[in-house]
Amino acid sequence: MRIVEILLVEAPHKPGYMAKVLGVIGEFGATVEGLNAVRRLDKDTIWEVTVEYDDSLSIEELSEQINLLPDTFITGKSDRVFNRHKQGKIKTVSTITIDSLEILRDVYTPGVARVCQAIQQTPSKIKDFTNLQNTVAIVTNGTAILGLGDIGPEAGLPVMEGKAAILAEIVGLSGVPILLKEKDPLKIIEIVEAISPSFGAILLEDIKAPECFTIEDELIERVNKPVFHDDQHGTAMVVLAALLSATRQARVNLKDRVFGQIGLGAAGMGICSLLIEYGVKDVVGCDLSIDAQKKLRSLGGKPLSLDEVMATADVVVATTGVRGLIKPEMVREGQIIMALTNPDPEIEPSVALENGALFATCGKVVNNMLAFPGLFKGTLDADVTKITHQMKIAVSETLSALAKNGALVPASLDRDAHNKVAEAVYKAAIKQKNEYL
Amino acid sequence: MRIVEILLVEAPHKPGYMAKVLGVIGEFGATVEGLNAVRRLDKDTIWEVTVEYDDSLSIEELSEQINLLPDTFITGKSDRVFNRHKQGKIKTVSTITIDSLEILRDVYTPGVARVCQAIQQTPSKIKDFTNLQNTVAIVTNGTAILGLGDIGPEAGLPVMEGKAAILAEIVGLSGVPILLKEKDPLKIIEIVEAISPSFGAILLEDIKAPECFTIEDELIERVNKPVFHDDQHGTAMVVLAALLSATRQARVNLKDRVFGQIGLGAAGMGICSLLIEYGVKDVVGCDLSIDAQKKLRSLGGKPLSLDEVMATADVVVATTGVRGLIKPEMVREGQIIMALTNPDPEIEPSVALENGALFATCGKVVNNMLAFPGLFKGTLDADVTKITHQMKIAVSETLSALAKNGALVPASLDRDAHNKVAEAVYKAAIKQKNEYL
Repeated sequence: MRIVEILLVEAPHKPGYMAKVLGVIGEFGATVEGLNAVRRLDKDTIWEVTVEYDDSLSIEELSEQINLLPDTFITGKSDRVFNRHKQGKIKTVSTITIDSLEILRDVYTPGVARVCQAIQQTPSKIKDFTNLQNTVAIVTNGTAILGLGDIGPEAGLPVMEGKAAILAEIVGLSGVPILLKEKDPLKIIEIVEAISPSFGAILLEDIKAPECFTIEDELIERVNKPVFHDDQHGTAMVVLAALLSATRQARVNLKDRVFGQIGLGAAGMGICSLLIEYGVKDVVGCDLSIDAQKKLRSLGGKPLSLDEVMATADVVVATTGVRGLIKPEMVREGQIIMALTNPDPEIEPSVALENGALFATCGKVVNNMLAFPGLFKGTLDADVTKITHQMKIAVSETLSALAKNGALVPASLDRDAHNKVAEAVYKAAIKQKNEYL
Repeated sequence: MRIVEILLVEAPHKPGYMAKVLGVIGEFGATVEGLNAVRRLDKDTIWEVTVEYDDSLSIEELSEQINLLPDTFITGKSDRVFNRHKQGKIKTVSTITIDSLEILRDVYTPGVARVCQAIQQTPSKIKDFTNLQNTVAIVTNGTAILGLGDIGPEAGLPVMEGKAAILAEIVGLSGVPILLKEKDPLKIIEIVEAISPSFGAILLEDIKAPECFTIEDELIERVNKPVFHDDQHGTAMVVLAALLSATRQARVNLKDRVFGQIGLGAAGMGICSLLIEYGVKDVVGCDLSIDAQKKLRSLGGKPLSLDEVMATADVVVATTGVRGLIKPEMVREGQIIMALTNPDPEIEPSVALENGALFATCGKVVNNMLAFPGLFKGTLDADVTKITHQMKIAVSETLSALAKNGALVPASLDRDAHNKVAEAVYKAAIKQKNEYL
């Protein structure tokens, strides 16, 4: 794993000293990310040097080597990532300043009673006079946090806060992390249903397969609000966007090609499901789990072995978590391959290309944060109760259309792209709403 | 119920016109709360006139009467209370600006993974690297919202958002409204326990008696975090503060007097419980419910009839919701009486005083928002797992000590008082923590 730390270095304010420091860092095998003078002393200067290194290296050893340089000392160090998580990344604020008794009596008792009664009489007014329709529960039980596995709900909170911070920053929605001390899918369904009045929509997050499938399916049935498991569909939407861009660049029609999915966990199953809904007629996939194979068949796909998938599919996506699973000799001439496991893919893109692939990429291009903020914003603004395949496909098509200069998808923080995704989802949602009427 | 509305009045910009408008409002029976010129036209001015009136009066009728004045027109109206609730009163914000890929990669993937692992290895680090220890769930099932009864959890959301806004504004904590679609106490306990990892503390709110007692008792047992039902203890702490001030003013020692509680619902039972813990030796109370009488006995109090309570108690508190329940002839010479039902008390203070009471007041002085913000702030800062009677008594003693100029408690928005309450709770909590060690 890569670690970013900030070293505080004190050295004479003379030419050449920092060059030596950077030389030592380079020889040590770490890269320099930033260099800033933070304080000028009598003769010396204190520098903040941001270094990135693999966790197989020891920062203490690097510090010792720097201390061996003439008149140069490490005076401290701090970890930038941990600094940025101190005291958390989100908070609740009041949108009204409560600085007079008049305001207090309006927003709290006695004034608030009339607002409560108005909602009791006309339940839809809850959307006008509360923050409900901007509120998204971010629910996890901690069983599949990132690639770290079942580390428990508490250890997953930094991820949930991260998603809430992204929702707030990118589309102005209020994310609420909900950590569940529960693994039984039926109980999770009951609990989330019971607390569902608190939120405008529910984002399920980092819940492991196969439980995530039942939980999402059942909650969609029971809760009359958008429910969405990001690990399944968030990744799938961005993968479909990338595939649309890649096939466009390769002048291939995705719908007519055989699509092969390697790994049928939450993400893999979500990808197969979305591609089938998009109109890809021939979907094959492999996974060691018999249940996963059955589920793929129920979606309309065909389970095969890994070798068979590689031998038949024109477009291959791998989401297995297994480094180097795809051997160079399995690659066929003209294949499009996305090996998405981070940080070490199933096959390095360069190796795939050398062995005849027409197009190859890895997981760094597919960031699921491109999908969920705009999807929730558009869905909540349109006030629909379900997230349909049409809305998800609208996300993928928008992202692909906005990709520039040979990229497969826009940059993660491209706000214009997020806004356009929200608009596209809103339009698709309103269209469907009108069709139901 | 009192309603506050803003009338937009257009009238010539000449002396005397607004006097006539205010004259009409006064004759109509409404009071004027504010008058602001908002726009100057060619000859006329548009005024915002804020009027408060009883809901038995018709604002339409008032508007018609104003329209009858020469050259004067109502051009619109808006309801100030509803305006202040538009789109809700709280939101989640990111405490870090996410405007570069470097920041995104630190606060979300891949950086966040190391923070998750650090918490997995050392669970207490969740308090350093997330907002957990500043987060308070505000949980209701909507069965006893204000004095409105069982109006459902959704209609209660404006109150929960109000409490969250107060927590944010007064002590900087993050309140999270949780609306439960559930009435069975055992299921509520299970649900709140299951979601408890998400919060630093749990504020139960507007859940009806007697279910609220079981729910709070059992959650205190099961959840290793502060759990607190405001309707029971928030009111009790402020009542004890007011009683301390009133008995001090009357030169009476509260602990030596017979205390009588009329009405043994959530608030009444909380008051009895806290007074017994405070050291009042003789507590009597009345309620029609046999269960409530039993519960009072189990706390160490003595159930009596209403007449008996009035005949024996030196200090009386009433929380029944029944206007005029205490008849003038029941009042004894020298009694201290707090009739707390809003807006119409069990006995008007003036009537109680005329009939011999030494001291009498009503519910307007006892605002439970004086207690809960500082209580939660102090408890969470001290990082204790239970809210004890000592901490609650510290709140009451602090509030009483800070009451100025003959008032029983400080003003609701006195920030210094809230900070002092938080400090007193923090000290009491740390003291107890050290005693347990």
